[in-house]
Amino acid sequence: MTLEVTSSAAAELVARLGSAVVTDPDRMLAYRRDQSLLTPDGEPSTLVRARSTDDVVVTLQIAHRHGVPVVTRGAGTGLAGGANAIDGCIVLSLERMNEILRIDEAARTATVQPGVINGDLAAAVAERGLWYVPDPGSRAISSIGGNLATNAGGTCCAKYGVTADHVARIKAVLPDGRIIHTGADTRKNVAGLNLTQVLVGSEGTLAVIVEATVRLRAQPSAASTVVASFPTTAQAIDAVLTIRQVADPCLLELMDRTTISAVNDMTRMGLDDTAGALLLVQCDGGDAAAEAARCAAACAAAGATEVYDTADPVEGEEFMQARRAALTALERRGSTLLDDLAVPVPHLPRMLAAIEETADRHDVLIGTFGHAADGNLHPTIVFDVSDAAMTARARAAFDDLVAACLALGGSITGEHGVGALKTPYMESMVGATERELMAGIKSVFDPSGILNPGRGF
Amino acid sequence: MTLEVTSSAAAELVARLGSAVVTDPDRMLAYRRDQSLLTPDGEPSTLVRARSTDDVVVTLQIAHRHGVPVVTRGAGTGLAGGANAIDGCIVLSLERMNEILRIDEAARTATVQPGVINGDLAAAVAERGLWYVPDPGSRAISSIGGNLATNAGGTCCAKYGVTADHVARIKAVLPDGRIIHTGADTRKNVAGLNLTQVLVGSEGTLAVIVEATVRLRAQPSAASTVVASFPTTAQAIDAVLTIRQVADPCLLELMDRTTISAVNDMTRMGLDDTAGALLLVQCDGGDAAAEAARCAAACAAAGATEVYDTADPVEGEEFMQARRAALTALERRGSTLLDDLAVPVPHLPRMLAAIEETADRHDVLIGTFGHAADGNLHPTIVFDVSDAAMTARARAAFDDLVAACLALGGSITGEHGVGALKTPYMESMVGATERELMAGIKSVFDPSGILNPGRGF
Ligand SMILES: Cc1cc2nc3c(=O)[nH]c(=O)nc-3n(C[C@H](O)[C@H](O)[C@H](O)COP(=O)(O)OP(=O)(O)OC[C@H]3O[C@@H](n4cnc5c(N)ncnc54)[C@H](O)[C@@H]3O)c2cc1C
Ligand SMILES: Cc1cc2nc3c(=O)[nH]c(=O)nc-3n(C[C@H](O)[C@H](O)[C@H](O)COP(=O)(O)OP(=O)(O)OC[C@H]3O[C@@H](n4cnc5c(N)ncnc54)[C@H](O)[C@@H]3O)c2cc1C
Repeated sequence: MTLEVTSSAAAELVARLGSAVVTDPDRMLAYRRDQSLLTPDGEPSTLVRARSTDDVVVTLQIAHRHGVPVVTRGAGTGLAGGANAIDGCIVLSLERMNEILRIDEAARTATVQPGVINGDLAAAVAERGLWYVPDPGSRAISSIGGNLATNAGGTCCAKYGVTADHVARIKAVLPDGRIIHTGADTRKNVAGLNLTQVLVGSEGTLAVIVEATVRLRAQPSAASTVVASFPTTAQAIDAVLTIRQVADPCLLELMDRTTISAVNDMTRMGLDDTAGALLLVQCDGGDAAAEAARCAAACAAAGATEVYDTADPVEGEEFMQARRAALTALERRGSTLLDDLAVPVPHLPRMLAAIEETADRHDVLIGTFGHAADGNLHPTIVFDVSDAAMTARARAAFDDLVAACLALGGSITGEHGVGALKTPYMESMVGATERELMAGIKSVFDPSGILNPGRGF
Repeated sequence: MTLEVTSSAAAELVARLGSAVVTDPDRMLAYRRDQSLLTPDGEPSTLVRARSTDDVVVTLQIAHRHGVPVVTRGAGTGLAGGANAIDGCIVLSLERMNEILRIDEAARTATVQPGVINGDLAAAVAERGLWYVPDPGSRAISSIGGNLATNAGGTCCAKYGVTADHVARIKAVLPDGRIIHTGADTRKNVAGLNLTQVLVGSEGTLAVIVEATVRLRAQPSAASTVVASFPTTAQAIDAVLTIRQVADPCLLELMDRTTISAVNDMTRMGLDDTAGALLLVQCDGGDAAAEAARCAAACAAAGATEVYDTADPVEGEEFMQARRAALTALERRGSTLLDDLAVPVPHLPRMLAAIEETADRHDVLIGTFGHAADGNLHPTIVFDVSDAAMTARARAAFDDLVAACLALGGSITGEHGVGALKTPYMESMVGATERELMAGIKSVFDPSGILNPGRGF
């Protein structure tokens, strides 16, 4: 791609889309990276702040004709570099397409533009007694389009599933500008291949999502909360295994010693600082209190030193705030390289041991928190980015964590996506033939390869 | 495909696989059709009763080399003609690959060969206190491979989802004999495109599933049951809409007047014969009885003439037997053309009205039952197959039902699949570009087009 190509594409974009197009490098700076650290990025040639599906169609048609790469951008809260600009690319931002188009109470669906912030949708449907379930930690700042494109998780997945489980239909624009509609308004639909689930988690590599119809549920009853601290992470995971047998918690989160102390320092919440691990459990539904009591008993039986059980939602929310503060609290200790690994739940003790060994071997601090019920951990390497040797050790530790996870039959990414961060590990994760199939599917949607080239798989 | 081609492929198969290969037309007869009526079929050239993944690989390699079509067959209980033979094809039966390979209690997964019967798996895991959720009406006779290939539904979907929601990994053989592994053992995994969900529901058009790891849950508590009869179907659907607001039933089934009377005739269960519709509701979980009481109240408020509420699981199971008898009971009235349509739940009254109008217009009997919580109905046209004019009317009525469903924004198949039955309606269902994408994905998996050619999309 030559400068000539990108600038004639930019000129066409300006001619067609006017003020929606930005080419001033300073104004494009804020659209250059997502929230990940140490991921590669490049210099965009153009930023399009689409106002409508038409704008998206025009942008893609022009990019397609000129062969200019397009990086689709939601709210830019990604943690895998998937929305980072590529040299010469068009950044196609959807933040302005942020209208909630329809809330259908009887059908229990909402139809939204992709730039709608998750928390705004959740609030709008809550006013009608409905619930949009997917709750990534970033729900206040990330977009539904980005959530779909990454198949975002959250804390509720333990019981209610991930973003993929709550989408009925997607409207998307193919790289050549054609519009497609996938899925159905019905709960059940087996007519043909599941294009919806091909798009979910495709991280901007196949098509640009311009509208989605998501499923809603009735609001659940208030949750009961259990907080338990354990001498060791192994004991905490013992409790997790029992809890899964005696209850169906809607939240089951883990924090290790390093994370607990970072959260205490930041929030002065007074979590049990002597503990090796802390579990936070919530149960909802008509039987919440009884379920929570069973969870509390499971924690005690597994060797918890403190178990606290409350049906007060305000108190429960305070503990949730401690959990949500985990990443920010660790970020106060230095630069962070956040990982996102998933292992089968019974392998969690081995994964946690591997994390500790890795921290020792590379002499870096690693704080771990995550979604214990799903085996999805976020070991967070804390280092000093101005210290080159330490940064190299952090990167080496990151590699080792991924390798340890793969050795346990785990997934290299449970919810953040592959993006630019995990592409190097994809072949060991999925295998050569499987990767070839993915590349084949990519070619079906994007034969000229302009959407997020080189990323994802 | 000439006779020469098929017979040299058959000779190679015999040479490589010996007694696993059948070419005697009489012995192949039982493998020619699934359980659908009026779907096209053909004369197979060869039947392979695979004993292992190796047998599947060898079969596909030979078929691929000779360009012979392959129809994969599970238990042959399909209702869309997807497992019907095609002229000259190899029928690849997986019924002998019926071993449960592993039940991992801690990870709550089971790994099975594709020929394992759903009910056998359910029974084996129940012995260990675990639950394999998907429960198609055919669970005693259909295979896990077939369930995955059709993304089978059942009665539990209302609360617990369809087959797609309970699969972690798939091992499959591509038409050229290469083996792929999709998915992960973890609950969450966003590494690359979702090949698992591409295979689920692909009805034997992409690859042959030779192994699957499915997710298990803890056994739910016993369910409470509500049975309510209504003067009209519209009132029954009113109740359904309210029930979804006040409870999370694990089962919510509907039978219309014709079905009720057919079931009564067959079983002498004494269901309310004066009713226009009957609802069967079950609630599980710690709060089952209270939830069921709320459902009962919702039925009464919507105008139910009789509401019966029981926490006795034996009694509940008796009502379930009435529901499960629906199709068999209608089959006693004549030949049946069973449809499988889904509409958004609020449109159920309009769909039910369209069914009645269609029956009148074409002068055929239509009995309707189905999964009300999912908007998934099975209008069943009863006719006399020896009466050509009536058979033509039945086919015309079938077309009209599909058209009415499409007009309501519904899906032409909620759970039975496209197979050979619904292919003609696919383009109106999914659109031309979307169908092109599906065909493109098909070409990625099956470039020479030997797997179930002409079917699915
Ligand atoms: C504090 C914090 C907490 C977080 N907690 C969680 C969590 O609990 N769970 C979790 O899963 N993630 C979490 N994340 C990560 C991030 O918020 C999610 O990945 C989110 O889904 C990204 O949404 P976005 O709108 O910011 O997308 P972006 O970062 O803008 O883009 C993400 C990817 O999606 C693509 N994309 C975006 N929009 C579209 C579209 N409309 N069409 C096609 N492709 C598109 C982009 O090209 C990119 O590849 C967290 C992030 C932060 C900063
Ligand atoms: C009485 C009765 C009740 C039923 N109730 C329900 C219900 O409640 N819900 C529901 O969804 N369905 C129901 N069905 C339909 C049927 O049982 C399901 O579609 C079932 O999933 C088919 O499984 P099977 O093993 O019989 O597959 P088959 O009929 O043998 O095959 C079905 C399709 O899957 C493909 N296939 C089979 N195995 C494989 C494999 N291993 N790899 C790749 N492709 C494969 C075949 O090519 C074919 O296209 C019912 C059927 C009957 C007779």
